[in-house]
Amino acid sequence: MELNVYLAGEIHSNWRSEIKEKAKSLQLPIQFYGPMENHDRSDFIGEEILGEQPNAIFRDDAASSINNLRTELLLKKADLVIALFGEKYKQWNTAMDASAAISQGKPLILIRPEGLHHPLKELSNKANVTVESVNQAIKVLSYIFDKE
Amino acid sequence: MELNVYLAGEIHSNWRSEIKEKAKSLQLPIQFYGPMENHDRSDFIGEEILGEQPNAIFRDDAASSINNLRTELLLKKADLVIALFGEKYKQWNTAMDASAAISQGKPLILIRPEGLHHPLKELSNKANVTVESVNQAIKVLSYIFDKE
Amino acid sequence: MELNVYLAGEIHSNWRSEIKEKAKSLQLPIQFYGPMENHDRSDFIGEEILGEQPNAIFRDDAASSINNLRTELLLKKADLVIALFGEKYKQWNTAMDASAAISQGKPLILIRPEGLHHPLKELSNKANVTVESVNQAIKVLSYIFDKE
Amino acid sequence: MELNVYLAGEIHSNWRSEIKEKAKSLQLPIQFYGPMENHDRSDFIGEEILGEQPNAIFRDDAASSINNLRTELLLKKADLVIALFGEKYKQWNTAMDASAAISQGKPLILIRPEGLHHPLKELSNKANVTVESVNQAIKVLSYIFDKE
Amino acid sequence: MELNVYLAGEIHSNWRSEIKEKAKSLQLPIQFYGPMENHDRSDFIGEEILGEQPNAIFRDDAASSINNLRTELLLKKADLVIALFGEKYKQWNTAMDASAAISQGKPLILIRPEGLHHPLKELSNKANVTVESVNQAIKVLSYIFDKE
Amino acid sequence: MELNVYLAGEIHSNWRSEIKEKAKSLQLPIQFYGPMENHDRSDFIGEEILGEQPNAIFRDDAASSINNLRTELLLKKADLVIALFGEKYKQWNTAMDASAAISQGKPLILIRPEGLHHPLKELSNKANVTVESVNQAIKVLSYIFDKE
Amino acid sequence: MELNVYLAGEIHSNWRSEIKEKAKSLQLPIQFYGPMENHDRSDFIGEEILGEQPNAIFRDDAASSINNLRTELLLKKADLVIALFGEKYKQWNTAMDASAAISQGKPLILIRPEGLHHPLKELSNKANVTVESVNQAIKVLSYIFDKE
Amino acid sequence: MELNVYLAGEIHSNWRSEIKEKAKSLQLPIQFYGPMENHDRSDFIGEEILGEQPNAIFRDDAASSINNLRTELLLKKADLVIALFGEKYKQWNTAMDASAAISQGKPLILIRPEGLHHPLKELSNKANVTVESVNQAIKVLSYIFDKE
Repeated sequence: MELNVYLAGEIHSNWRSEIKEKAKSLQLPIQFYGPMENHDRSDFIGEEILGEQPNAIFRDDAASSINNLRTELLLKKADLVIALFGEKYKQWNTAMDASAAISQGKPLILIRPEGLHHPLKELSNKANVTVESVNQAIKVLSYIFDKE
Repeated sequence: MELNVYLAGEIHSNWRSEIKEKAKSLQLPIQFYGPMENHDRSDFIGEEILGEQPNAIFRDDAASSINNLRTELLLKKADLVIALFGEKYKQWNTAMDASAAISQGKPLILIRPEGLHHPLKELSNKANVTVESVNQAIKVLSYIFDKE
Repeated sequence: MELNVYLAGEIHSNWRSEIKEKAKSLQLPIQFYGPMENHDRSDFIGEEILGEQPNAIFRDDAASSINNLRTELLLKKADLVIALFGEKYKQWNTAMDASAAISQGKPLILIRPEGLHHPLKELSNKANVTVESVNQAIKVLSYIFDKE
Repeated sequence: MELNVYLAGEIHSNWRSEIKEKAKSLQLPIQFYGPMENHDRSDFIGEEILGEQPNAIFRDDAASSINNLRTELLLKKADLVIALFGEKYKQWNTAMDASAAISQGKPLILIRPEGLHHPLKELSNKANVTVESVNQAIKVLSYIFDKE
Repeated sequence: MELNVYLAGEIHSNWRSEIKEKAKSLQLPIQFYGPMENHDRSDFIGEEILGEQPNAIFRDDAASSINNLRTELLLKKADLVIALFGEKYKQWNTAMDASAAISQGKPLILIRPEGLHHPLKELSNKANVTVESVNQAIKVLSYIFDKE
Repeated sequence: MELNVYLAGEIHSNWRSEIKEKAKSLQLPIQFYGPMENHDRSDFIGEEILGEQPNAIFRDDAASSINNLRTELLLKKADLVIALFGEKYKQWNTAMDASAAISQGKPLILIRPEGLHHPLKELSNKANVTVESVNQAIKVLSYIFDKE
Repeated sequence: MELNVYLAGEIHSNWRSEIKEKAKSLQLPIQFYGPMENHDRSDFIGEEILGEQPNAIFRDDAASSINNLRTELLLKKADLVIALFGEKYKQWNTAMDASAAISQGKPLILIRPEGLHHPLKELSNKANVTVESVNQAIKVLSYIFDKE
Repeated sequence: MELNVYLAGEIHSNWRSEIKEKAKSLQLPIQFYGPMENHDRSDFIGEEILGEQPNAIFRDDAASSINNLRTELLLKKADLVIALFGEKYKQWNTAMDASAAISQGKPLILIRPEGLHHPLKELSNKANVTVESVNQAIKVLSYIFDKE
């Protein structure tokens, strides 16, 4: 059984590469998917495809329409979602993706620094498991396949 | 036809009272529901009911379990959800509720100050309508019942 | 048992009033709902609430976002949908609403002039019943309540 | 991950071939499906299989029943739907298929000439992305697989 | 709590009146719904509303389209379905309605003479309860409300 | 807003009366439902309605078919489920009802003595809230309606 | 794209072999599934696995429980269902399977001799296509894959 | 067609190995999945990944959160569930998994010693088939693939 895992969350650090490498070294039968990780391209994909927009709000709407299409499609094909929250930024799209995963009945692992426990308490309570590091998330993934 | 509307979002300002009063003055047949608005009680409801918890993280988890129960039940009975984002705080529970509404096929009105357009772009793109003020949200509610 | 019926379709003729009057004269326990019937207001509701938009396409998008919110909410509360196609106009929103009703498992009555049978053949095949007049639609509604 | 994409819309131009060729030249891992493209066969498939029908309306119903069976099955297996509207014809079946895709939670790309923005405004507002050319649609498809 | 119960099955005997009277005498808070019980009207409702049809098969299709609309709507509003099979007739529409109830997660009581146990074995195995008389079905309904 | 609450669990103590009285004294707008509380009648309802069964296993199956019908219907109409586990008995039907509530997206309050924490750990983890007394459950119910 | 097709209906003739052979000769990428075709084994599978049952009714229930398990599992994996009704027998399980397919949104082809049009009129109206021969059903299957 | 079967239930005997071996010797195309079978690891997986917990209740909650994640994911991918109840232990998680399978429309085979028929009567009534031995369960699995 091969699993599809969607990696939701910030695109400012290399946490996705870290997860992929560790999963590979453990030979876990998992394919990982996620959002566009090039931040500028993600922000300007609307204008790249649809042409110049009237102002920053419409540019954001154009970009997010295409990013949302990508996320919806990949999330729907995922067996499990990992959502990582970092120290910076609003990260409301991450909360949106995590909540969508819960609503679709997909298991959710939440990764967040301990310091964020208070603002993330409702989402953490709904996630299957909340951890503080990529390493712990990998251990949860690995446990799915363990026989003993 | 009477509608149930759930008001998700911050509990630091009196925006819910404002909406309720305006809806009342317009005689809109709407019942409004929302989270516990007493901030301290919301944060400590876990310990209030379940007793002292080992530390702040467990206290948060206990509180959010009861707050989530309330929100899930009221959201499920809602015909429409209004989610308001303010300038302050992380507000990840608001994003979670808004995304849950979308996943359940409930119309969503997003209220946010213009300045937050960039971090809210994905959620805004999924909402039915994004507005900047309580007044505009009331106009959308009112339009549902307008004949001409 | 009182039923909610959504009347989808053109807003250029008075077919909704005709249905409501006939249902009333037959004392059918039905509440009727439908879109904004003031054509100009429907087209400009986006700018009315959200302010001036950059151009005609964005004005249309703003208006349709609010019209779609109204339709989604009322369609979801409907027990049955009647969709009327007239001789003029593209009427793609009517086809969209009719298809949404089918997807949600709501019985659909299609009213169309005989002359439109070819372009409407797929939708007609999916509708529960296709009729040519408001009178026939009323007879179908009436039959739901008939004992003998 | 290989995707299934259903191409809804007119069968009078060769836009499907154009999409397939471009996807192939970009080596996108996509299988494309769609309706019968032989217009006469599509119109007469009912009589071809079920025998002569009493008149044109019944012939249309017989044909559409078989075309709808094909579309329902292939749409259900699709990960994404592209719906193209051209300048001519009523194209209500395209609007029906596009709306069915939305109702089933499948991402929808709408292709339409700019001139049709007004009659398509509601459908466009519900689609994930609206574009004006096959080229733009291909760019959206390609972006789903892009790493950076 | 008032319940809606749909009474599926033959319209050649007065079993529905019997159930209604017994429920009334027991003061059970139940509203009963069912198909058109005038057999001729049920068979000719298609032509009554849509006009003469080309032959008996098309007349049957026209009638069943309207009967199915009625059944779908009333079944969807039902909290429980009772399906009665008699000694005569094919009664495939009764089996169809009973199976639809099961698929929609609605409790199903099957009433059939003991002699039909073999051909009804699969449906009986899926029903919640299979009984042999209207009296027994009433006892099951009554038990739902019993305190002790 | 009046809520329906289903009270799943043992029928050997008077915990349901306790909940109903406390809810009444707090004027909570809640209707409570639950299983047949007369233990003997619950065990013999199959034979009471269907007649003598071949042996104890078939008697149990007959009884549970009617009890399950009642539970399924009332659970489906419930807005929230409270499941109470006591010190004695296997109580697998309580676990079954609690899990059905979770699967249907209905908020679940679990009441169990602290001593049962280990065998109930998986169910407790899925419940919204786990408490140790009827009093605590009432506080959770009450909190749903509290303004501050 | 390979399709799974479930063949519901009588097991007294060799119509399934006929369909499989024709599909094979046309090289249609279809896997066919269906019920146990050995009539005696189907009737006695309950006692074969569970041991002797108290009487014919319980023997039927035991057998149908295992046949229903098989059918439910295979129907759920099917992309399309073909249901054949013959001249003889009650065939209520075929009507049950056909209705389950419709409820699950799976395309349904109904095969029946013309003479059965009246008792099958409701099911026929709900099926996507009704044909009179295996040959016609194969033509519908084939059309799904035809390019022109 | 290869099937996925989830084996829910006790991890104190080697019944899973027995099923796997028999399925293998019969060359049934089935992949089996189940919970962590190392009892200690299952009980301490929470602390193994998340670190020491405040007390036994929190340790149980941490462990069950990870075990539930594993079960939810594997159950969702299963085509059929077998749940085995033994003579000892509370086994409420097995009842929970069995009920979740039923709610998700997955066929359920229940294995239990005859002596447990009374406390398991409601679950047994909802299962597709109840058997007393692993051998009988294998026969049911085998029957799914039998041609005659």
